[in-house]
Amino acid sequence: MRALYIGRFQPYHLGHHSVIEEIALEADEIIICIGSAQRSHELENPFTAGERYLMISKSLRDKGIANFYIVPILDVNWNAVWVSHVESLIPPVDVAYTNNPLIERLFEERGYDVRVPLMFNRKEYSGSEIRRRMLNGESWEGLVPKAVAEVINEIAGLRRMKALSMSDL
Amino acid sequence: MRALYIGRFQPYHLGHHSVIEEIALEADEIIICIGSAQRSHELENPFTAGERYLMISKSLRDKGIANFYIVPILDVNWNAVWVSHVESLIPPVDVAYTNNPLIERLFEERGYDVRVPLMFNRKEYSGSEIRRRMLNGESWEGLVPKAVAEVINEIAGLRRMKALSMSDL
Amino acid sequence: MRALYIGRFQPYHLGHHSVIEEIALEADEIIICIGSAQRSHELENPFTAGERYLMISKSLRDKGIANFYIVPILDVNWNAVWVSHVESLIPPVDVAYTNNPLIERLFEERGYDVRVPLMFNRKEYSGSEIRRRMLNGESWEGLVPKAVAEVINEIAGLRRMKALSMSDL
Amino acid sequence: MRALYIGRFQPYHLGHHSVIEEIALEADEIIICIGSAQRSHELENPFTAGERYLMISKSLRDKGIANFYIVPILDVNWNAVWVSHVESLIPPVDVAYTNNPLIERLFEERGYDVRVPLMFNRKEYSGSEIRRRMLNGESWEGLVPKAVAEVINEIAGLRRMKALSMSDL
Amino acid sequence: MRALYIGRFQPYHLGHHSVIEEIALEADEIIICIGSAQRSHELENPFTAGERYLMISKSLRDKGIANFYIVPILDVNWNAVWVSHVESLIPPVDVAYTNNPLIERLFEERGYDVRVPLMFNRKEYSGSEIRRRMLNGESWEGLVPKAVAEVINEIAGLRRMKALSMSDL
Amino acid sequence: MRALYIGRFQPYHLGHHSVIEEIALEADEIIICIGSAQRSHELENPFTAGERYLMISKSLRDKGIANFYIVPILDVNWNAVWVSHVESLIPPVDVAYTNNPLIERLFEERGYDVRVPLMFNRKEYSGSEIRRRMLNGESWEGLVPKAVAEVINEIAGLRRMKALSMSDL
Repeated sequence: MRALYIGRFQPYHLGHHSVIEEIALEADEIIICIGSAQRSHELENPFTAGERYLMISKSLRDKGIANFYIVPILDVNWNAVWVSHVESLIPPVDVAYTNNPLIERLFEERGYDVRVPLMFNRKEYSGSEIRRRMLNGESWEGLVPKAVAEVINEIAGLRRMKALSMSDL
Repeated sequence: MRALYIGRFQPYHLGHHSVIEEIALEADEIIICIGSAQRSHELENPFTAGERYLMISKSLRDKGIANFYIVPILDVNWNAVWVSHVESLIPPVDVAYTNNPLIERLFEERGYDVRVPLMFNRKEYSGSEIRRRMLNGESWEGLVPKAVAEVINEIAGLRRMKALSMSDL
Repeated sequence: MRALYIGRFQPYHLGHHSVIEEIALEADEIIICIGSAQRSHELENPFTAGERYLMISKSLRDKGIANFYIVPILDVNWNAVWVSHVESLIPPVDVAYTNNPLIERLFEERGYDVRVPLMFNRKEYSGSEIRRRMLNGESWEGLVPKAVAEVINEIAGLRRMKALSMSDL
Repeated sequence: MRALYIGRFQPYHLGHHSVIEEIALEADEIIICIGSAQRSHELENPFTAGERYLMISKSLRDKGIANFYIVPILDVNWNAVWVSHVESLIPPVDVAYTNNPLIERLFEERGYDVRVPLMFNRKEYSGSEIRRRMLNGESWEGLVPKAVAEVINEIAGLRRMKALSMSDL
Repeated sequence: MRALYIGRFQPYHLGHHSVIEEIALEADEIIICIGSAQRSHELENPFTAGERYLMISKSLRDKGIANFYIVPILDVNWNAVWVSHVESLIPPVDVAYTNNPLIERLFEERGYDVRVPLMFNRKEYSGSEIRRRMLNGESWEGLVPKAVAEVINEIAGLRRMKALSMSDL
Repeated sequence: MRALYIGRFQPYHLGHHSVIEEIALEADEIIICIGSAQRSHELENPFTAGERYLMISKSLRDKGIANFYIVPILDVNWNAVWVSHVESLIPPVDVAYTNNPLIERLFEERGYDVRVPLMFNRKEYSGSEIRRRMLNGESWEGLVPKAVAEVINEIAGLRRMKALSMSDL
């Protein structure tokens, strides 16, 4: 059984991580799609697809998980065509996992078996909460896999986010 | 005389319908352009261009109107080029009708005869009011032609809109 | 039953015309897609989508055929996504007609009932043969519906083609 | 030494003008990039790239400044690729000037020497303040070079902005 | 050490396979980029990116190779921006391998260490030779990894290619 | 009087140069559009828009010509929209000069006064002839302004062209 999991991963955090760990137990292979791959250097989307790729692959290797593939997916801004766009870039899948209601709906209308993974503690394990903490100088490292904190340090991610947040006055 | 009428038709409602009926009396042919054709599956733009096409064509056929053409127009996100983009896809027209001030301006700057049709009861005969009612479970069928309500039922339009409105918590 | 017929129509000729007449007898509605809609002013693609729209609609009205819709389709240069792109712009269809082997294959892989219409006298009723005659000053008007010859005259189509064919020496 | 200065110039005002005058003294050549070149006819972006081109070139010629080049730059909506996009369209530069923190960051990450010019009186010499005054019928001509006011008059810029601001009720 | 290997893989064959095996011995990780990812259903590019993904991943897993990542790369048709486009989608690499002289040049101009892998028996281990044999009904299975032949059979690849090659007479 | 001159300038040569010198005498200002601005690193289009910008501006400055502007123009692959695209990026012009029959036709259909400059000795003063000589190691420097030969040397243009011409065997 081949499973699909789609997210933006800005950044990849322990909420995503535990979902993927669970899917990895059931599925023979997981295709992890990095959505909005062309977005970066924005307060809502600070990291490039390449940086997110590294966060995910390192974190999963650290856990000994190897049955995964990562595929960056560019926005097409054309919802009715989007599933077809994803299908052309990945091997066929048996089930799609997502927490995004739009993606859920789009795959359902194409006849897919879509499942919404349970994410525990969504207030903390949330991209926007982690980005908020990064900007405010609060502690955030505990909410992401160790490898993610390392990647963000290496690329000076906090400096980038602070630069982006500065008004030009 | 060939007339152009441009709208987004999310969904096509009785306000649009009565305007087109009136233009159809004066003009030999009406070109109806479906704007933002690539947008769908959003709360503001729930329906695909194909679904909107069906709403318009069925409603007009029901009224016995036959002197119309429907042309889906993709956004180009380049206002200064937009009129030229429309011109390349449709037969030449003598007059352009629109209720959108930007479109009005763009056609005027290109030297067109632009007319703003009078729309009665715009509080109710309005796409956003109809979408609001759909989401809140209020009655909306009376604001659209019968064929439109049928199309929306066939494609399970309300279910789609409710799915899109759900937060992912 | 709703049928789809796809072509480039550079220009619309009697071969297309007789196929559509036949489909119009069987089908309740025909959706005629103008492919490569953004191409024009090239030797292989001299006419804009708007000009082709006019050729088709006038020719069919002249025959008393009214159960058709015309939809311009831009190239996406992404074959695996193309059918989905068409689907998002048109009402659902029961059968697809085409003489283009690539389009035939793409619709078949999506599970469509695809039919290849018999075109008689393809040596003469062929876009490239008609364009060749236009450029060489040979007689071509007999190969297209009367309305098409009129449209090409109105837009000074022959002058355009000759201009395009001139080398810049 | 060749310098780069990037802005949107909606419209070009005395704040920009005094910065460029200063750079023109130090640099052998200034490349002035007009950002978001494809945007126009919006309340935040009323003027086309061509109109902005004219504002800048006339104002600088009036001051006797001649060592400048103007390059319109389209948005690519892909921040990680944007600097490379600019680089492909302009001659190589030694230093980049900008007041936009995102652009500052993107050029810094590519290893550029980036400088943030001091802009005096930013409350008044500001695109949004000037656009606000235009819409409200307040005096704005004193905040832009004389040539800019002339260009805006010639193209009936105020009429355009008022048209865009009208609600369609 | 992280290595990059770029190809179109239409289809993935034993020439590619032996090169990757060799790189896999030296490098800690290989990023395999599938170029022209949006092309498929053409005689020169019969397979989708998803199908090519499957060919590569299965063949490498069969060999026990696991230290690889596969990234589909869309054409941007803008050579001067292409390396930047690739960089935004992949983790940073130390060395780039390619047999395409254009790609070699583009990476070299960006300062990369580029290596041209030795490919033995290029007359037979060549995408165009394999596609030629497929179309002519000659034997080709010996030129690709076993998994590739299986994928092509599953998706009825030969039938697709023959359909594409048929003239529409 | 403001004049427009459009070319690809691969590379800028003495044929272009003498035409522009002549236009510069008659016109108050010349807008020089660099067509196919996004193309580079191809045998037919070896140089980036930025490199071509430098060739033109240096050559004209060397001649003491200052009343010119250079605007890079990306291909839109949509002929019917192309003039409108150019118009949005440049100040209004009174006359358009071009040696390309397609561009001539497109501007004429929009109502422009188009003139075809006489180019003397077109066999030698021709982009394709100069590129042919570069590849074959023949003498070409005499066919371009001195500044152009300098730019091509600085960017190692010959090395780039030879790399592009190498087959990958």
